[in-house]
Amino acid sequence: MTYERENIANMHGYIPGEQPDSPDIIKLNTNENPYSAPDPVIETLRHITGEMLRKYPPPTANDFRQVAAQTHEVASDNIIPTNAGDELLRLAITTFVEPGATIAVAEPSYSLYPVLAAAHGAGVLEIQRNDDWSLPRNLAQQISDGGAQLTLIVNPNAPTGTLTSVADLKELAEAIPGVLLIDEAYVDFVDPDQGYDAIQLIGDHPNVLILRTLSKGYSLAGLRFGYGIGHADLISPMLTKTRDSYNTDLVSQKIATAALTHRPFAQKTWEAVRQERDRMVRELHAFGILTTDSHANFVLATIPGDFAGGAANLYQTLKQRGIFVRYFDLDRLGDKLRITIGTPDQNTALLNALKELAT
Amino acid sequence: MTYERENIANMHGYIPGEQPDSPDIIKLNTNENPYSAPDPVIETLRHITGEMLRKYPPPTANDFRQVAAQTHEVASDNIIPTNAGDELLRLAITTFVEPGATIAVAEPSYSLYPVLAAAHGAGVLEIQRNDDWSLPRNLAQQISDGGAQLTLIVNPNAPTGTLTSVADLKELAEAIPGVLLIDEAYVDFVDPDQGYDAIQLIGDHPNVLILRTLSKGYSLAGLRFGYGIGHADLISPMLTKTRDSYNTDLVSQKIATAALTHRPFAQKTWEAVRQERDRMVRELHAFGILTTDSHANFVLATIPGDFAGGAANLYQTLKQRGIFVRYFDLDRLGDKLRITIGTPDQNTALLNALKELAT
Repeated sequence: MTYERENIANMHGYIPGEQPDSPDIIKLNTNENPYSAPDPVIETLRHITGEMLRKYPPPTANDFRQVAAQTHEVASDNIIPTNAGDELLRLAITTFVEPGATIAVAEPSYSLYPVLAAAHGAGVLEIQRNDDWSLPRNLAQQISDGGAQLTLIVNPNAPTGTLTSVADLKELAEAIPGVLLIDEAYVDFVDPDQGYDAIQLIGDHPNVLILRTLSKGYSLAGLRFGYGIGHADLISPMLTKTRDSYNTDLVSQKIATAALTHRPFAQKTWEAVRQERDRMVRELHAFGILTTDSHANFVLATIPGDFAGGAANLYQTLKQRGIFVRYFDLDRLGDKLRITIGTPDQNTALLNALKELAT
Repeated sequence: MTYERENIANMHGYIPGEQPDSPDIIKLNTNENPYSAPDPVIETLRHITGEMLRKYPPPTANDFRQVAAQTHEVASDNIIPTNAGDELLRLAITTFVEPGATIAVAEPSYSLYPVLAAAHGAGVLEIQRNDDWSLPRNLAQQISDGGAQLTLIVNPNAPTGTLTSVADLKELAEAIPGVLLIDEAYVDFVDPDQGYDAIQLIGDHPNVLILRTLSKGYSLAGLRFGYGIGHADLISPMLTKTRDSYNTDLVSQKIATAALTHRPFAQKTWEAVRQERDRMVRELHAFGILTTDSHANFVLATIPGDFAGGAANLYQTLKQRGIFVRYFDLDRLGDKLRITIGTPDQNTALLNALKELAT
């Protein structure tokens, strides 16, 4: 006898990237920022008392909302703090998608989306990106024809790292009937010279919801803190109805607020990652390993079939040497590895391993 | 134009108890433990580094699961850590209740349940408790007739504090077709002399799910950490499928593990609360204010209509004096106040205020 709903019994759960515990591992498989958060952020922990934890936290994390609003030059009403970006994804599906209805995703994409849809009893319209990973020209038409109530676009995309322009997102938002969630988990690593800023869309586009997380850009994956940015009418039902009543805890609220307050430190890590990303692209190219034009803190590298036995074998060989990268045994990705940009030393260690394997 | 689902647009959100910020307030309105967690638990915060927070947390909080399993003499497979008890409630509804189906609650009860049901698009079968707040004899029949896929029983109940016996819960679990969630948010305050232990049910009753939280018993409401205890087959779909992929963060995992490890300290606070509870019942009785037989860290007090203008007025008068208690403007509760047991000084301050108001 099982008590699960049928859709739950039939679905598969999300499989996160491996989290080896050993400090000797060079961990380039789950897109963490290679640099730790600065002391003033971590010191926030030292000032939390038992008396503070004894009481319920501020239910909607209003201190954080204010700092986030200032950071992005929007109002507090445009911000919903969440238990990492994953909670916002779930809330968007819960709030805007009827069970039995459909969400749309541009593949390849974040593999959690279909899992959340399955748990909700929603269908997934998987629309393939072009060969260069850009969005297909008829995307909006496909979404409209499929009646998707929510469209999820990672930007920069994972696992490709490619960036869709704000102009294209704006056009998409205007052409589809439902909500457009722009998952900007990796946006902090976009070069400011790109002039990319999708937040400008929320004023005139009440169906645009932007996801941000402190996991990567602010070196706080262990904290589980993210937030949504959108029109107040879009934020409100999630904030006042579908969110768990105290969804973020006091400690994470305090650290997250400090992290945004000390944003200049984080910005330095973004610049350091970009410099190393450029180096990695060049050096991998010298091995005949081509990468996508990545704007994130990882590159998607195409491994030639005659290089160390191809992508799947190379993944295993590197793992045996204590270097973890990500291999997706999926359509269109079988000859590729997603490599997180690490510290210069970590990246050099990977390149040295590749040099040995290439000869 | 709204993008909300119709059931979300039509529902009302949960209204938490007031959380006044001033330290001068005597806060007896949201059932927090009046004593802070001990230093060894809080010192856990001092040992968390930026490097630890940089990486993703253990996805299923296995260290905590082990300690919880030892504490309750069950296996790790019987434990699911959650972002406070509220997440477990939502997961149970998501996992075991079809949208359009029904949950059953024994009223009066935790007012979050109907909110979670509404967000899920599920109906609520509200079954009234007896006049003495015990469960009605035909409860199982009503639940079966109503086809409820999930039954939620708070035990000790909130806001009444009354305790249902394990024998009655066992009978109920065997007589209903769906899952029985026993919400033990307040169970730590039950006198050990009662011999109450519902965890013994999970071995032979694969439909029994027990909710625990560190919010009250362990003085950690600000942390948002709870867990479910149940048959491995009941826990598994929530742990591997419907839970957000990293639902608890590293900091809360560490503190929660320390809290269970230092359980003897928490047990002393439970005993202190019980002693004060006994005193409050006696002293309130002396004012002609009768209470339920509470096994929780609060009492439900019936305010005579001629005492300070009755419950609603007394609530306001106390609030003006900086003493917050909880008033529910609801059927069967309109002449009552729920009073959290505070420190001896806080309780005495309340009694002194009542003494002034009684004359």
